[in-house]
Amino acid sequence: MDRIPVLQMGKFLLVTIQVDLYDRLALNLESDLVQMVNKTGARGVLIDISALSIVDSFMGRIIGNIGSMSKIMDAETVVVGIQPAVAITLVELGLELKGVSTALNVEKGMALLRRKIGSFEDTQEEEHDDNSVE
Amino acid sequence: MDRIPVLQMGKFLLVTIQVDLYDRLALNLESDLVQMVNKTGARGVLIDISALSIVDSFMGRIIGNIGSMSKIMDAETVVVGIQPAVAITLVELGLELKGVSTALNVEKGMALLRRKIGSFEDTQEEEHDDNSVE
Repeated sequence: MDRIPVLQMGKFLLVTIQVDLYDRLALNLESDLVQMVNKTGARGVLIDISALSIVDSFMGRIIGNIGSMSKIMDAETVVVGIQPAVAITLVELGLELKGVSTALNVEKGMALLRRKIGSFEDTQEEEHDDNSVE
Repeated sequence: MDRIPVLQMGKFLLVTIQVDLYDRLALNLESDLVQMVNKTGARGVLIDISALSIVDSFMGRIIGNIGSMSKIMDAETVVVGIQPAVAITLVELGLELKGVSTALNVEKGMALLRRKIGSFEDTQEEEHDDNSVE
């Protein structure tokens, strides 16, 4: 497999990462995602990593890259399904996942994205992003 | 990896199959899915196979099994993202994907599921399942 599918669901794109990312897979994912954001006008990107039991600095960097790229394309990125062990590793490795928010699962991630997009479109609405790790 | 994540999105469950299924992975997926249907009361199961460029008779049988199991649990199954080559292979292998509907992509699959569930809940509503391969 050299490509991770990017699924469109309304205004959002969903990516489930189930295997460890290696160089080409990561580059393909980055380019597929920005192209999909461009083509579909998506406002949010959901990345589900619930299948990953470990995460390394490379993976952390790629997720950060995706967040930054999406931001430039005017889309928010939310990482969901972070396993407890992965959360521990992220902190111990000192990985910050800059520009990326997190949520417990896909449903909560979607709700967070809707709030974020809504609060951009309607700035007087208050934002309650308790899960933000920005 | 010995588990494919099952994502809950409202009334639906979403599974993206990105790797070839082997015995244990397939059994885990089947049991995870029925448990999730039971736990969440999901009415529909979406299986995205857009990452698969080939499909064999084992995979076809597993998808058929999932469809039958979900049906017993009162949930509809829709397979989405079937690549042209996979469609050709399915027909040439004589695999029927019994009890499973298909749609071009996740969005159309969700629309199909909504129509199906709606039509069950409201029987006087007409059903237009052009993509059904039942």
